Amino acid sequence: MRAVWLENGRVSVRDLPMPEVVPGWVRIRVTLAGICGTDLELARGYKGGFAGVPGHEFVGVVDAAPTAPGWLGRRVTGSITIACGACDLCRSGLSGHCRERRVLGLLGHPGALAEYVTLPVANLHAVPDRVPEAAAVFAEPLAAALEITEQVPVPPRTRAAVVGDGKLGLPAAWALARAGAAVTLVGRHPERLAWCAGMGICGVPADGGEPRAFDLVVEATGTPDGGAAALRLVRPRGTLVLKSTTAAPATLNLVSVVVDEITVVGSRCGPFPAALAWLAAPDAPPVARLVAAEYPLNRALEAWAHASRPGTLKVLLKPNATG
Amino acid sequence: MRAVWLENGRVSVRDLPMPEVVPGWVRIRVTLAGICGTDLELARGYKGGFAGVPGHEFVGVVDAAPTAPGWLGRRVTGSITIACGACDLCRSGLSGHCRERRVLGLLGHPGALAEYVTLPVANLHAVPDRVPEAAAVFAEPLAAALEITEQVPVPPRTRAAVVGDGKLGLPAAWALARAGAAVTLVGRHPERLAWCAGMGICGVPADGGEPRAFDLVVEATGTPDGGAAALRLVRPRGTLVLKSTTAAPATLNLVSVVVDEITVVGSRCGPFPAALAWLAAPDAPPVARLVAAEYPLNRALEAWAHASRPGTLKVLLKPNATG
Repeated sequence: MRAVWLENGRVSVRDLPMPEVVPGWVRIRVTLAGICGTDLELARGYKGGFAGVPGHEFVGVVDAAPTAPGWLGRRVTGSITIACGACDLCRSGLSGHCRERRVLGLLGHPGALAEYVTLPVANLHAVPDRVPEAAAVFAEPLAAALEITEQVPVPPRTRAAVVGDGKLGLPAAWALARAGAAVTLVGRHPERLAWCAGMGICGVPADGGEPRAFDLVVEATGTPDGGAAALRLVRPRGTLVLKSTTAAPATLNLVSVVVDEITVVGSRCGPFPAALAWLAAPDAPPVARLVAAEYPLNRALEAWAHASRPGTLKVLLKPNATG
Repeated sequence: MRAVWLENGRVSVRDLPMPEVVPGWVRIRVTLAGICGTDLELARGYKGGFAGVPGHEFVGVVDAAPTAPGWLGRRVTGSITIACGACDLCRSGLSGHCRERRVLGLLGHPGALAEYVTLPVANLHAVPDRVPEAAAVFAEPLAAALEITEQVPVPPRTRAAVVGDGKLGLPAAWALARAGAAVTLVGRHPERLAWCAGMGICGVPADGGEPRAFDLVVEATGTPDGGAAALRLVRPRGTLVLKSTTAAPATLNLVSVVVDEITVVGSRCGPFPAALAWLAAPDAPPVARLVAAEYPLNRALEAWAHASRPGTLKVLLKPNATG
């Protein structure tokens, strides 16, 4: 099969053996996959010497399921953490943080920027029929946005700010607005801020937002200096949620965290069922807005270069299309 | 009156005018005051160009109370934040974070390393008779330790670690053990770790403690690199409490905070009533252990030098003693 290969920061398209399917697992023919900011960071050195197939945002159809035939032919996406099920964290309900985990396209398991990908049955999530293909591929990043409201209470009248109007920040702003917060979106793209006005989200430029005024601030810039920009907006005793994982060291000034007694919450992957239910709901988020371009797999280098341009929204790959 | 004066990082003893007492305030004759790590950091440049009388840990006797005569002659200590009562934070119950606050010996109000100090009546806390003088002076740091258990839930079987066995770390370990946690104290002083064994606290050397194993870790080293040492011990989805305020920039690697979804909680001042009640209780913490030395005010330079030596516990000043 053909797949994107990332090694020493270079992207290529390779022919790889068809992945084997072991008991308890399925093979999925990938119909659409997204290039995530974390994938770009992998190429910049995040997680050290990554070599392999990247990609952890996808939708596809199960085409081999030796021990779970009920999944055959179903349209699915999948949770990205492959847990051991045996360590102390798995046993205490934190399998997403499994100590021996492999992570689709990130750690120890080939990713979804490929014609085929394999996953354990336990990781599968059926995609409701009414969710379009180009929306289903956003289940993973949308789940990551919903993780914020799972981790942090959002009581009525919460003043929330999201710093970053990219492919992480926009879903975060939508999720907070849906949870009932009054959301200010801090960003560099007036056209994106304008889209969100109709959703009750107030857009302000990158140096905007009242300092030390927000109950809840989400850092979603995808850059190492986003933390400082976001911390500036948090009120004393407020909460700062960190979403970015970057190859360059990202640090935070701890003195103001201590003096203002701020709570900083690291936030990573989230609940797929909630994301898919939202994508199927009448108030589904406008994820189609997030698509910058779609490429066939054999134009993956072009797609990667496009995705790497600052400010680009989501670049999608169609692994099984011909270009 | 005589007072310690700190300016451009230099300590001196000065004769200052007796402080005036305005309505709603009292004057206190200071009987004992402590030199805090934050005071030493002030001398190293924390809070920029501090010039004035430092000191915010004290016990004394009210000697002028024009509008609150019931306080005259009473032994007191005092909360250190002088709030405006009018800003949004004061009105929302967060007067400790008042936007216009002055802070005893730290910001805009002369401190307690002096023969006399003034405070609003609202800041006073009567010291129970059974609390010895040398224990009452620890009400402020003990309150700061209790703030941890106010901010972070400590359910049964919580595995807690405290990094730093100094004048901040020891009370933090005691407070967590009292709250029912299984406490590991990570420190450089075997004799201090040994004291704590009798309190059910397990001492380990500075490079000890199982990595990524603790539900709750408190950074109490008072040094800029304490955060990293403490973060190492936090389990995924665990909590890191930061207590140190340092002049040198203290930063934290945010990638592991995000990937392990750690919650970082800044923690500052705490509840005086709870601290004084504990000091008066049968299970009062052994704060006498924390006293390294006691000096009269006219030997303040010597006291400051002593307090500045790495690893020193609490140095006390007796402002009204003759040396």
